[in-house]
Amino acid sequence: MSLTQEQKDLIFNSIRDIKDFPKEGIIFKDITTLLNNKEAFKTLMDHFEERYKSYNLDYIAGIDSRGFIFGAALADRLGIGFVPVRKKGKLPGTTVCEKYELEYGFDEVEIHLDAFPIKDARVLLIDDLIATGGTATAAAKLIKHVNAQLVEVCFLLNLKFLSGDKKVAEHAPVYSVLEI
Amino acid sequence: MSLTQEQKDLIFNSIRDIKDFPKEGIIFKDITTLLNNKEAFKTLMDHFEERYKSYNLDYIAGIDSRGFIFGAALADRLGIGFVPVRKKGKLPGTTVCEKYELEYGFDEVEIHLDAFPIKDARVLLIDDLIATGGTATAAAKLIKHVNAQLVEVCFLLNLKFLSGDKKVAEHAPVYSVLEI
Repeated sequence: MSLTQEQKDLIFNSIRDIKDFPKEGIIFKDITTLLNNKEAFKTLMDHFEERYKSYNLDYIAGIDSRGFIFGAALADRLGIGFVPVRKKGKLPGTTVCEKYELEYGFDEVEIHLDAFPIKDARVLLIDDLIATGGTATAAAKLIKHVNAQLVEVCFLLNLKFLSGDKKVAEHAPVYSVLEI
Repeated sequence: MSLTQEQKDLIFNSIRDIKDFPKEGIIFKDITTLLNNKEAFKTLMDHFEERYKSYNLDYIAGIDSRGFIFGAALADRLGIGFVPVRKKGKLPGTTVCEKYELEYGFDEVEIHLDAFPIKDARVLLIDDLIATGGTATAAAKLIKHVNAQLVEVCFLLNLKFLSGDKKVAEHAPVYSVLEI
């Protein structure tokens, strides 16, 4: 079931623009004002549940660390497990690691090698926002690398003018609640 | 309603010990094996919901970043807002900041000054584990500093031999699901 225009507006208008964060010239999309607005948060979670309840998912994987917020709440709603994809050095077990390019230099994300105890697990990957798609693409590769099925990659907000969604779409279908 | 011994065992046994992480001599309590175990995760979330549904809470505050997982899922279950307490430099708006001591040196956590839109908000602070209590004590101070009521501080796991719970208890009642 799609969101009504009114519901989309409620969610969109609860996200706050912060100028010059983390550095000059960038307008940061602050979702903390969505999270502390119980109507907006519930409307979004209802939508995620409605969309994904028929996907027969085994796990939600969330990207460190705002993807944990929506991912864990959605896994709990669907009664399935949650798996964190983390920045390098945070996971204590045996991991696989994927490097990706930033504007200057590189970053890395990791997943536990035994993250998905179910064989051929059906996994949804979730994060709050997609910009250039570097982190999400690396996370998508990791999920496939540990032999899970990546059913879809889901974002609250897609900065479509940066075309990151096209990069992620090489690995799995992409769904975004809102686009800019 | 309390957990039965069987439910406690299910939760406890789903947490994995990892030796020598993040450094030699430390046994790390890995909760990712609880999160990807749908029975254990659901049992824990049912318990949190059962305990806190009558507390008349306005917000759950979660500590960066494993506190986001339980905190967001619990806020969603209770139909209330979620507020992240973050490591320094991650929150884009105007923040208040609290320094705390580590074994060697200092760390800092932050909260948005306008994190709680409701006046005198009733807040539960949550994290996965309490060790020496430095982070949780700093987070508790921040919540009071921005004029919210800190109703309780909740942990999945309390390493009681480190007495961190006593430090936190100077600021609000402490509840732990499991103790070691």
